[in-house]
Amino acid sequence: LLNLIVQVQCFAADEIVSMPGLKEKLPFKQYSGYLNGNDGSRLFYWFVESQSSPAKDPLMLWLNGGPGCSSLAGLIDENGPIFIRDNLTVARRPFNHTWNAFANILYLETPAGVGFSYAQDDKMKINDDTTAENNYAAIKHFFLKFPHYSNRPFFIAGESYAGVYIPTLARRVVQDSSINLIGLAIGNGLLDNNINYQSLIRYANYHGILGPTLWANLKQHCCQGEICRFIGDISSKCQNTIQIAMKTIYTDGLNLYNFYTQCSQYPMSQIRQYTAFTTLTKSTHGLFGSPPCFNNSVAVKYFRRDDVKKALHVSDQAQPWTVCSSGLSYRTQYKSAVKLIPSLSQKCRILLYFGDLDMVCNFLGGEESISSTGLPTIGNYQPWHYTDNNGRQVGGFATLYPNVKFVTVKGAGHLVPGDRPTEAWWMMKDFIQHPF
Amino acid sequence: LLNLIVQVQCFAADEIVSMPGLKEKLPFKQYSGYLNGNDGSRLFYWFVESQSSPAKDPLMLWLNGGPGCSSLAGLIDENGPIFIRDNLTVARRPFNHTWNAFANILYLETPAGVGFSYAQDDKMKINDDTTAENNYAAIKHFFLKFPHYSNRPFFIAGESYAGVYIPTLARRVVQDSSINLIGLAIGNGLLDNNINYQSLIRYANYHGILGPTLWANLKQHCCQGEICRFIGDISSKCQNTIQIAMKTIYTDGLNLYNFYTQCSQYPMSQIRQYTAFTTLTKSTHGLFGSPPCFNNSVAVKYFRRDDVKKALHVSDQAQPWTVCSSGLSYRTQYKSAVKLIPSLSQKCRILLYFGDLDMVCNFLGGEESISSTGLPTIGNYQPWHYTDNNGRQVGGFATLYPNVKFVTVKGAGHLVPGDRPTEAWWMMKDFIQHPF
Repeated sequence: LLNLIVQVQCFAADEIVSMPGLKEKLPFKQYSGYLNGNDGSRLFYWFVESQSSPAKDPLMLWLNGGPGCSSLAGLIDENGPIFIRDNLTVARRPFNHTWNAFANILYLETPAGVGFSYAQDDKMKINDDTTAENNYAAIKHFFLKFPHYSNRPFFIAGESYAGVYIPTLARRVVQDSSINLIGLAIGNGLLDNNINYQSLIRYANYHGILGPTLWANLKQHCCQGEICRFIGDISSKCQNTIQIAMKTIYTDGLNLYNFYTQCSQYPMSQIRQYTAFTTLTKSTHGLFGSPPCFNNSVAVKYFRRDDVKKALHVSDQAQPWTVCSSGLSYRTQYKSAVKLIPSLSQKCRILLYFGDLDMVCNFLGGEESISSTGLPTIGNYQPWHYTDNNGRQVGGFATLYPNVKFVTVKGAGHLVPGDRPTEAWWMMKDFIQHPF
Repeated sequence: LLNLIVQVQCFAADEIVSMPGLKEKLPFKQYSGYLNGNDGSRLFYWFVESQSSPAKDPLMLWLNGGPGCSSLAGLIDENGPIFIRDNLTVARRPFNHTWNAFANILYLETPAGVGFSYAQDDKMKINDDTTAENNYAAIKHFFLKFPHYSNRPFFIAGESYAGVYIPTLARRVVQDSSINLIGLAIGNGLLDNNINYQSLIRYANYHGILGPTLWANLKQHCCQGEICRFIGDISSKCQNTIQIAMKTIYTDGLNLYNFYTQCSQYPMSQIRQYTAFTTLTKSTHGLFGSPPCFNNSVAVKYFRRDDVKKALHVSDQAQPWTVCSSGLSYRTQYKSAVKLIPSLSQKCRILLYFGDLDMVCNFLGGEESISSTGLPTIGNYQPWHYTDNNGRQVGGFATLYPNVKFVTVKGAGHLVPGDRPTEAWWMMKDFIQHPF
């Protein structure tokens, strides 16, 4: 009995009872605070209960990528129930745009050093494996803090570099029979470095970025018949031609996260920084801080306010909040996390969804990545539909593999629920509630 | 003197002195009425003077395509100074969105049978050549009615099937030394039927519509190495595979005019009608009435009102207004109007611009069409920029040929100034005011 009381007090202490700038009463409960990772790391979480049936709806973990980016950005800018206005007031996202319409969602800032998360041991090794272990430890702690969620149908979702976080974490979770893992959902995931990079060249050409002459040169110098190699052991002529293509893609002011969206306040220094980052031939990712073309100043202002930090139970030991941390020393280990998908698909269903306007992790590369695993397709590639005020609409296209679904979201960029909230909502609700 | 007075009276009678639903006084003059084509055809025009220097700014003729579509749609939905609200009130388009910020614009409904235009001889042959002759006659009549415009720098602009209208008309205009033709601007023009159709298959694949299996089948059945043929004398296996691709492209509810835009009130009957239209292997275009996915009900309601027709000087002999006429019997003659471009480019500068989200006349096909003429490129394919509140932005990409410029407008569909008014405005202003 004592133990139970301690636990109840524990989560009750994390309840967010008010938020600066929020005028109305929310029709759901939310909690924030810290979950313990390993080695003294303290991972900040923000948990929003479902607006429908919190006691029955599934539990979803949401992870933004980077590595180095905060999952709070996912909450306020993509799929959470609230967002921050320019004047720092807090507003509700429409019910049919927020994913807590059908799930309880745990947003986790990971690894230590990201957002409000920190480590007591600042010499801690940070790489893909330690991040997965820390995330697993944090989930276990969450179930201790919130024991009434411990048997709930559990989903892990996220985007971008979460294409590595999620399979590596899930590999650990499936070994734990006390966790009721049902599914994984990865949005614009970095599934395979080489394929992602190779496909970007084709994506750029057929979206009008390269032009016929440069494309002809690329084919001449980098391809033999149908087979092209734009990365790795390639000729210097091919390398030189690719440099020209990369210059246009990365440094002419295009918004890489959504080709058809403007670039907000693009500082040239970020272009250079990003250009360095994109050299995927290198063995480590450099972290690049705030992503170019986004204006994150509102979130930064809000989350650095003392009254906000107090309301959210942020520790004094946390660093000043940023969308993506540039100070983190992160060693990447999995250049093709997609290889983990086939065995995971025997334990849970997997959604790989891609906004088709993203050039950071483009959908062509996603499709080739899952195809490269050798999983057979089931049925045809075909459009999927949803319904809104204008009637039945094409949301994108989909292919089914055994317990794995590849889905494009038409008109979305890297941040799918942020760019196309209606389509993303229908897609994710369907994934959560219905097996393939 | 007498003659001059008659002419002045003539255009003065066409002035639009008030418009139902328009509350404010417009800072420019506008006129509407009829211009005489040949064989008794009466072509309806709407002329808006420039908001800057009407006495000095160039004169631009604007032609919508189809064949069968009304250029008034271009005025109210794309690049004109006013638009019609849902409640049938008339509002002004922002100065930096309307093209009469830098030009006097003559919107012409052509050929007879389109919009408010009609023919006294209802057995009149309507084809590409007679349309060009009628348009030329109408221009001559315009210069008679508005003699103070007769020496003005003259531009012919338009979109879609105007890819045929404009070169065929310009070929006649350049023979008339009394007309000061400076340039042609064609937006998402149907420049070459075969190339347009062939490139659509590639466009669809790299925009995620076909999927890897169907694409592999297409390459297997329709290609030999790099060379693919998706139209004409092709094997039955290739033909069957293309039918599968076409079914998705045309009948699954995609908005062909802008891939990333929803389809408004899509009636299935139109899908079938459109499917028939799109069989470009046929020797004639069927006209297909109102284009699928667009909701033109507001324009139709407004232009069918008696008080509106009176204010616009519409004849009682005109048929009820529609966006695109389905009753017209139009014989197409030019399957590759782009062949007329090289000789025209010796007389005037030519802009070929393409919204890159259009699947009716896709930009890849546009690029290949102009390239197929054998004109050499000058310099590199490269991004072009414009400036707005967010700073310098990529508007699209461009290649220069001798006196011909190929330009993409990033994020625009078939109706470029409607979809991307800011980018289109900068592009067109630059084209009108500065030689390449």
